[in-house]
Amino acid sequence: MDPGNRICLPAEAYRILPEYKDFKYGLIQGQENLRSALALQYHHHKDQFIITNGASEALDLVCRFLKTKGDYILLPRPYYYSYPYNARYANLKVKFYDLEDGKINVDNFETNLKGCVAVIINSPSNPTGTVQEIDTLKTIEIMVQNSGAYIISDEVYKDLIYERENYTFKGDHIITINSFSKTFAMCGFRVGYLYSNDQEVIDACLAMKTHTSMNTNILGQEMAFEAIKVPVEYIDQQVSIWKERRDTIYNGLIALGLDLWKPEGAFYVFPKFDNSNQVVNDLYYQHKLIVYDGSWFGAPDRIRLSYALNIEKIREGLERIENYLSTKD
Amino acid sequence: MDPGNRICLPAEAYRILPEYKDFKYGLIQGQENLRSALALQYHHHKDQFIITNGASEALDLVCRFLKTKGDYILLPRPYYYSYPYNARYANLKVKFYDLEDGKINVDNFETNLKGCVAVIINSPSNPTGTVQEIDTLKTIEIMVQNSGAYIISDEVYKDLIYERENYTFKGDHIITINSFSKTFAMCGFRVGYLYSNDQEVIDACLAMKTHTSMNTNILGQEMAFEAIKVPVEYIDQQVSIWKERRDTIYNGLIALGLDLWKPEGAFYVFPKFDNSNQVVNDLYYQHKLIVYDGSWFGAPDRIRLSYALNIEKIREGLERIENYLSTKD
Repeated sequence: MDPGNRICLPAEAYRILPEYKDFKYGLIQGQENLRSALALQYHHHKDQFIITNGASEALDLVCRFLKTKGDYILLPRPYYYSYPYNARYANLKVKFYDLEDGKINVDNFETNLKGCVAVIINSPSNPTGTVQEIDTLKTIEIMVQNSGAYIISDEVYKDLIYERENYTFKGDHIITINSFSKTFAMCGFRVGYLYSNDQEVIDACLAMKTHTSMNTNILGQEMAFEAIKVPVEYIDQQVSIWKERRDTIYNGLIALGLDLWKPEGAFYVFPKFDNSNQVVNDLYYQHKLIVYDGSWFGAPDRIRLSYALNIEKIREGLERIENYLSTKD
Repeated sequence: MDPGNRICLPAEAYRILPEYKDFKYGLIQGQENLRSALALQYHHHKDQFIITNGASEALDLVCRFLKTKGDYILLPRPYYYSYPYNARYANLKVKFYDLEDGKINVDNFETNLKGCVAVIINSPSNPTGTVQEIDTLKTIEIMVQNSGAYIISDEVYKDLIYERENYTFKGDHIITINSFSKTFAMCGFRVGYLYSNDQEVIDACLAMKTHTSMNTNILGQEMAFEAIKVPVEYIDQQVSIWKERRDTIYNGLIALGLDLWKPEGAFYVFPKFDNSNQVVNDLYYQHKLIVYDGSWFGAPDRIRLSYALNIEKIREGLERIENYLSTKD
């Protein structure tokens, strides 16, 4: 653990390590204590949750279930880079709703929704860092309900919204996906979950998981259970750290003359760059800076920078970008 | 951990728990140290391994890869109960080769192999407890090579063979699946692996895992790495414990007049019973004994008993079966 990094797994979570010795199979749906804690938090029944190998497995299970219901899935663009692959590996075909400055255009959304069995909403978004307006979310919630499609709400960054509370979709056919990776900085443990009040979804995903991976690793679940018990102030305190980081990188990039949205959530900035592929290569080989090409997210004129780093490293990164820009001119 | 249970994770594996604090994403293919240790053991390159969420995920990835190559997979019958589901969830169709007294009939195998993209070999077998003859394995190895199909060798019980060394398939298109669950009694951690000298298999499964689960939980991998370093005597000693258990349950059931094969590997006995479903229910509700219905494994005239228990519990179980049989007559 980086000692300069103030975002970390709560100490309570790894205090269980020394005496932990229960290595048997766990429940395939997930340990009772963890699901009960989630049930309290989300006002759902504990049997409406499945604990998964990260949000990735939840997405995979849900997509494979959806294939039994229809052929097309509607994705945001820019998108989290795995979404088109999750669709493809489940034999689903893909349609897109294009975000405008990172926001949903309701008309465009409605047009593309036709014929889709489900839509993924990712707010806050990786890679755009934008959060959708509550009014927009309420409008599309009704639209999707009326169409009979499923909403898959990927909320892995829901505890990293800087501006407001998270909005929770209501109605039938809502499948929510989340993870302990981001909120509690324990991504390597791969503990995620999905929940839904649609019993068919839970039954089908659970049946599939029984044969495709069995229980999620039990020690990771125990650590997630310890983590989830920490007071809400812990999360609030983390958000203020993230806000400081966000402001540092956003103001720094604006000062360098770049064109980007101010992140409202998550920990990415997504500035415009011509020849993004070349930029990614130059930054890596000449300035030892790892950034992602926007084209991996369906936005070829941008690059994605993560600010999941302490302030000193963010400042160092900004200096390297400044050096890069000065050599480019 | 049951103190009366002498089969357990080596102490070395959980000594790492107190100081373990590295929670970042790991390599999706699996940690370098663990793959290097496996590479030494199997005389393969470390990049020919993928560490998975148990053998289950390995099977799922492989079946989904195979669907890009063909439509039919050949399974043994009786089969491990997940195999038909793994095939179905990958949209593969199923053909069976029927075992005779738990052994492969080469002619029957050859007939059914036609048109199949792959075949699963499971020796030692769950549920039959049988181990295939080396001559048989060499014959079908050539047969499958000539047909161009893949051999998927599910060897999760390879360290629990009582009679001989494990046989390793040679040639192209061999995919081996294994796990740390059985050898090191750490099933709840879900650390398995697949390996192959077929680069296309590794590339395709790794690409899929990148989007469907990402890295296998890193602490489980570290514990597997500690476990794999224990001397081979540890495994030999375990086999002698298993042999004692095997002899106890086998001799006990024979003495009760049941018809079953003497297990050559794994930890299951598979005696004949009429009305197996009724027997499973009666044993559970009237005698508090959990056994599995043979029909779940494609053998409706049998029940499966596990002897992954200490000797005292095996004796207790035998007494309950004796009571059951006496009430039945």
